[in-house]
Amino acid sequence: MAPDVKQRKYQVIGTRPVRHDGVDKVTGRAKYGADQRLAGMLEGAILRSPHAHARIRRIDTTQAQAMPGVRAIVTAADFPEQGDRIVELGEGMANMRHLSANVMAREKVLYKGHAVAAVAADNVHIAQAAAQRIHVEYEVLPAVTDVRAAMREDSLILNEEIRTQAFGSAPASPDAKPTNIAKHFVFELGDLAQGFGSAEVVIEREFDTSTVHQGYIEPHNATVSWNADDRVTVWMSTQGSFTARQQTAELLQIPVSHVKVVPMEIGGGFGGKISVYLPPVAALLSKKTGRPVRLVMSRADVFQGTGPTPGSHMRVKLGVKRDGTIVAGDAWIAFEAGAYTGSPIGPACMCVFSCYNVPNARVEGFDVCVNKPRTSAYRAPGSTHVAFAIETVVDEICSQIGMDPLTFRLKNAAREGIRRVDGPVYGRVGLEETLAAIQASEHYRTPLPGKYQGRGVASGFWFNVGLKSSVSATVNFDGTVTLVEGSTDIGGTRTSIAMQLAETLGIAVEDVTPTVVDTDSVGYTDVTGGSRVTFATGIAAVEAAKDIQRQLVQRAALLWNVDPSAVRYEAGSVWGPQQQCLRFKELAAELPTTGGPIIGRGTSSEATQGGAFATHCVDVEVDPDLAKVTILRYTAAQDVGTAIHPSYVEGQLQGGVVQGIGWALNEEYSYDDQGAMRNPTFLDYRMPTCYDVPMIDTILVEVPDPQHPYGVRGVGEVPICPPPAAIANAIYQAVGVRMRHLPMSPPRLWAELSKNSS
Amino acid sequence: MAPDVKQRKYQVIGTRPVRHDGVDKVTGRAKYGADQRLAGMLEGAILRSPHAHARIRRIDTTQAQAMPGVRAIVTAADFPEQGDRIVELGEGMANMRHLSANVMAREKVLYKGHAVAAVAADNVHIAQAAAQRIHVEYEVLPAVTDVRAAMREDSLILNEEIRTQAFGSAPASPDAKPTNIAKHFVFELGDLAQGFGSAEVVIEREFDTSTVHQGYIEPHNATVSWNADDRVTVWMSTQGSFTARQQTAELLQIPVSHVKVVPMEIGGGFGGKISVYLPPVAALLSKKTGRPVRLVMSRADVFQGTGPTPGSHMRVKLGVKRDGTIVAGDAWIAFEAGAYTGSPIGPACMCVFSCYNVPNARVEGFDVCVNKPRTSAYRAPGSTHVAFAIETVVDEICSQIGMDPLTFRLKNAAREGIRRVDGPVYGRVGLEETLAAIQASEHYRTPLPGKYQGRGVASGFWFNVGLKSSVSATVNFDGTVTLVEGSTDIGGTRTSIAMQLAETLGIAVEDVTPTVVDTDSVGYTDVTGGSRVTFATGIAAVEAAKDIQRQLVQRAALLWNVDPSAVRYEAGSVWGPQQQCLRFKELAAELPTTGGPIIGRGTSSEATQGGAFATHCVDVEVDPDLAKVTILRYTAAQDVGTAIHPSYVEGQLQGGVVQGIGWALNEEYSYDDQGAMRNPTFLDYRMPTCYDVPMIDTILVEVPDPQHPYGVRGVGEVPICPPPAAIANAIYQAVGVRMRHLPMSPPRLWAELSKNSS
Repeated sequence: MAPDVKQRKYQVIGTRPVRHDGVDKVTGRAKYGADQRLAGMLEGAILRSPHAHARIRRIDTTQAQAMPGVRAIVTAADFPEQGDRIVELGEGMANMRHLSANVMAREKVLYKGHAVAAVAADNVHIAQAAAQRIHVEYEVLPAVTDVRAAMREDSLILNEEIRTQAFGSAPASPDAKPTNIAKHFVFELGDLAQGFGSAEVVIEREFDTSTVHQGYIEPHNATVSWNADDRVTVWMSTQGSFTARQQTAELLQIPVSHVKVVPMEIGGGFGGKISVYLPPVAALLSKKTGRPVRLVMSRADVFQGTGPTPGSHMRVKLGVKRDGTIVAGDAWIAFEAGAYTGSPIGPACMCVFSCYNVPNARVEGFDVCVNKPRTSAYRAPGSTHVAFAIETVVDEICSQIGMDPLTFRLKNAAREGIRRVDGPVYGRVGLEETLAAIQASEHYRTPLPGKYQGRGVASGFWFNVGLKSSVSATVNFDGTVTLVEGSTDIGGTRTSIAMQLAETLGIAVEDVTPTVVDTDSVGYTDVTGGSRVTFATGIAAVEAAKDIQRQLVQRAALLWNVDPSAVRYEAGSVWGPQQQCLRFKELAAELPTTGGPIIGRGTSSEATQGGAFATHCVDVEVDPDLAKVTILRYTAAQDVGTAIHPSYVEGQLQGGVVQGIGWALNEEYSYDDQGAMRNPTFLDYRMPTCYDVPMIDTILVEVPDPQHPYGVRGVGEVPICPPPAAIANAIYQAVGVRMRHLPMSPPRLWAELSKNSS
Repeated sequence: MAPDVKQRKYQVIGTRPVRHDGVDKVTGRAKYGADQRLAGMLEGAILRSPHAHARIRRIDTTQAQAMPGVRAIVTAADFPEQGDRIVELGEGMANMRHLSANVMAREKVLYKGHAVAAVAADNVHIAQAAAQRIHVEYEVLPAVTDVRAAMREDSLILNEEIRTQAFGSAPASPDAKPTNIAKHFVFELGDLAQGFGSAEVVIEREFDTSTVHQGYIEPHNATVSWNADDRVTVWMSTQGSFTARQQTAELLQIPVSHVKVVPMEIGGGFGGKISVYLPPVAALLSKKTGRPVRLVMSRADVFQGTGPTPGSHMRVKLGVKRDGTIVAGDAWIAFEAGAYTGSPIGPACMCVFSCYNVPNARVEGFDVCVNKPRTSAYRAPGSTHVAFAIETVVDEICSQIGMDPLTFRLKNAAREGIRRVDGPVYGRVGLEETLAAIQASEHYRTPLPGKYQGRGVASGFWFNVGLKSSVSATVNFDGTVTLVEGSTDIGGTRTSIAMQLAETLGIAVEDVTPTVVDTDSVGYTDVTGGSRVTFATGIAAVEAAKDIQRQLVQRAALLWNVDPSAVRYEAGSVWGPQQQCLRFKELAAELPTTGGPIIGRGTSSEATQGGAFATHCVDVEVDPDLAKVTILRYTAAQDVGTAIHPSYVEGQLQGGVVQGIGWALNEEYSYDDQGAMRNPTFLDYRMPTCYDVPMIDTILVEVPDPQHPYGVRGVGEVPICPPPAAIANAIYQAVGVRMRHLPMSPPRLWAELSKNSS
């Protein structure tokens, strides 16, 4: 716990207080989405497609409608037509026709689990029974589930209206041939031919990754009340109440100001709780019935009906000099968008070479529709896929040229002034420091003696975003402060934001009461995602604290009868020209008689975060008979900027690593020939448990981000990126096979081991 | 509807939009206190004293505790000892020993209905049954229920620790004789002896009024969750969530910042929902059980266990010249405090001569403990009592000197520059305008021809207070604005505040979404009472709107690349130096790209309202056989400052008048010899219904209050003041008897009529 005892720059930042919402959560008093109960509330169920690809001929709800206790049924026909509206939804542009069709299938179902109809009934049992009595006549079509097959000219087409705009060519004309390739683009830097021409060693490899789910524990949920005045209230767990509000409003085509989203506690999201699935459906059921309606997904619904992270096919080629200098890189990346475009192919292409100075580079990306659920974000979206590819290629090059993989990385590491393939030039970033930290670690310096044991390292990158946040804060007359924020708290951000407010005001964090409120009660705030909250909402909190400071200075000036310019705020006190001093709590007690309450406001919008880099080191042991990989030891070093609350930072690193281990070794959607997921339960979709992973050691490298007053960097996403590659590299060291398909599950590893030994 | 069609000074102010919470309320979707339901919630019941005055010898809870389903029992022993703490509770100083004993009797019960113990159980039926099995051993004492009897030296004493500090003498020593007189004070102005010496006509009369309840429809309620981290959440209907928070914290002796009060909708308060009764009890039950506990009063509990307005005995003496000039006034006023001090005797004494220029005056006031519930505020607290006295004395003087009562009042009316007996000098007030309005009214100029019919007029005064309010407001990117406020909305203030925000921003009020939030989510805000909300929270909203304007100006300057000082905000638009113009909605759409969200903050603290005056005219018909008074016609003229929402202003006038009619003619606590209320139900406690009153005509006189940017004056309280006096004066005109005891119910009027005819 070294950071706690060293001479501290800050009073609150860097300490490890108990989180404000901790007791509520461990005592079960915290209210999650499904806990919402309203008088007269109906419960709903959704009928989902049994087919991965089919045309809907007819939906007959007669029999379901006639069941006692059934109050309303909705299908796509109840949703407003969206036409070809493209709408900015806070996180980027969205095609409303697709977004709407994803929420409720119109004309075609594009994946098994695609919502087709919904029922509201007196209780969930009636609703579920009624959903089964809705008769849907399908014309079943062959399922397109392989990304390369889907890209072929002769492939069956999922969305007939999609035309490719090939990279560099004019927009496709409406009578062009439809395609499953929904996006296609290229990033280029330097001179690729010249680069590879100067290379002395070139390695090119192909990779596949399977569909993986975020695996949050709490299923999606929504309770909606459509009031008689057409005001709609949504209670739900979501990563972004404002984004959920906007999506709901756009899908229903009602004014955004008529929708209020009340964020409940959220049991995990990891990117999967940004897209909206249930609120518009519950809203229409509520509108039809005049009563509140609650919808809660089952685990199978979550797997089959919400967005996992895409499967992918990738080709990466890297050229280096014999001395280890990278001279050129070429990547070709195709992501399975799922039913509709929306995969993180963009970030993937930006990330593939992001850890290195690659002076000549080209990256080509494709987003490809297949008959799987529309994909969605998952912790550092796209970056884990490409880290698996590039970091194993780097490892192979290091083997070939006989260079220590950390030395190689240090030689080529992204640093201030280096340009990334997609354009931006890095500011102050800390990849080198993470490489040095692993190099210096007891872990890396300890030999790994055993047979079938191996050690691997890998690095990773995530952008971290800024976006918009708002907070307000008020001073109670007893010297405590209430903090109102719009960022839903997934990973302890009530506390990390409160700590920044407390630090700026020079008060104890226990004297700050943070509250996450609904969309009518705070200013616009973007999603909890992109590792942005502690950074951007933190800036807003610092601004609010400064706004409070300014007003406290004026109050003190009033009390002392001096000019405000002669008063300063410092170290939790206001100081007058004769060194008069009032501590925060003393001055708070004077507020009632000096002008009343003080409200501080703060927003953040313009700040751009510097990126986050991580380097991980893992030791594995491979059972040669079972082809099972055991993680022996794991150390994650990461540039965390300034660790506001080190325990939560460590927790983010550990959690990210464990998810990365799951992705590396076991997790995948297992599909049958008809495109049906065969393992939509937590028994069959194998996530790591505490029996599967050792304690994850963390090294917090603090390279403050100059864009933030306290140097905060987002820490939540990048820890998921290195594990698959690091483990693949360790497997190679252990048993001499290069794994190029995720997950590296026993069957796949067994196949490779068998090839090797044959 | 003249105000709506005339050339308007304002765009939004003075219009009559549908209230934002209207649909929720008429469709039953609004959630009141008793609607709160939490998982695992217990329900409670309170055992109340059957005696008006008794010493508690012993409380035996054994039998109750043993009942299946009973989870906890609390008595005063569970409450922290308060000693003699005097605490400022926002509305004035409170003796915590008394406040605590009023919530749960310790040692003595001082009124029938006084809480003695409380039970939490699995359901309310078990709780009620268990409460009845708590055995309390009482030493019953004689009940002291008459204010004059209680003042006698030899009276039985309720609170042994009270010592009188007689007016003008030193603080009473601890070994002075205890007394029931809890407060005693005198206001003096001019030279009383000289004043009466110059008088040509002097009339002195004595008056009595009975105990009257506010009669709000929704009973008191509280649901409390005492969390494992000693954070307490209270859901309740209250006039002031911050005051309720502070009282709860002080009664439980926990930090105020550990209590969050979530205000539910409130079904009437009228001053009766400021004092806290249930939250500390439910809190202790929740602490003991670890589960949320809900307490809801019955109607009988409300009548017997909460604070009505005091009964009183008053003596008023007025001296005038023959020409009608008032030269001197003397008043002696004793209020029944109830069990503990707290009656509005102070305001009563300030109000008694407040409608007149009385150059030589003296007012002596007493707050006297009696064995009735501790009294509490009721709409213009204390002013209705004294208006009944002074306004009937004035009427008698007018009869005697043969002067029209409106002419007399105009001659002596309080106006700018006149000093009130308690010191303050009036600013711009509108009493004369209300007198002139009644004088000019069709009602007053229409002869009243019938036998047993009579017409009466009377005036009234209420201070209106300022106090503290906070709001914040945020601009949505679609050009709507959310408004967050701490003032619980009893009479439509969501809308009256939103209208002021909308007016200041130059937008439609429908584009403002007002929300009343909990104490953790907004700055300190005093109670909804004192006719202060539309005034003071309105000022805060105007300030917040100006704060938004300033920020919008900066955004526009950024867009136009000009200096912000060259940009101005006017008529809902920002204007640049070359007359560039962006309407509010247009600029709101630019916010995402010019710095993000905008939050406006506003507070109000220093502003002092000017007073509100009213003059009413009523026609009655008396049935000489039944002594029943029928209201034939009623017109209320009132200086309403600027009527923000005329319909709600009219509603306030009409509601106040109807409550005044009830107080005048029927409402009273009927006590038996033992001090037990005999009529604690709405069947027996006779409030007026729509069958009892005609349509109340209103004349809105608008004399803007210069203390408020739009001239707002509180309008809610003063309309209750004139009715009893006006009706008494009308009864005199109809049947020639002067009624001096409220209510002027058939038995009392019959007695007077009988005296007259005998």
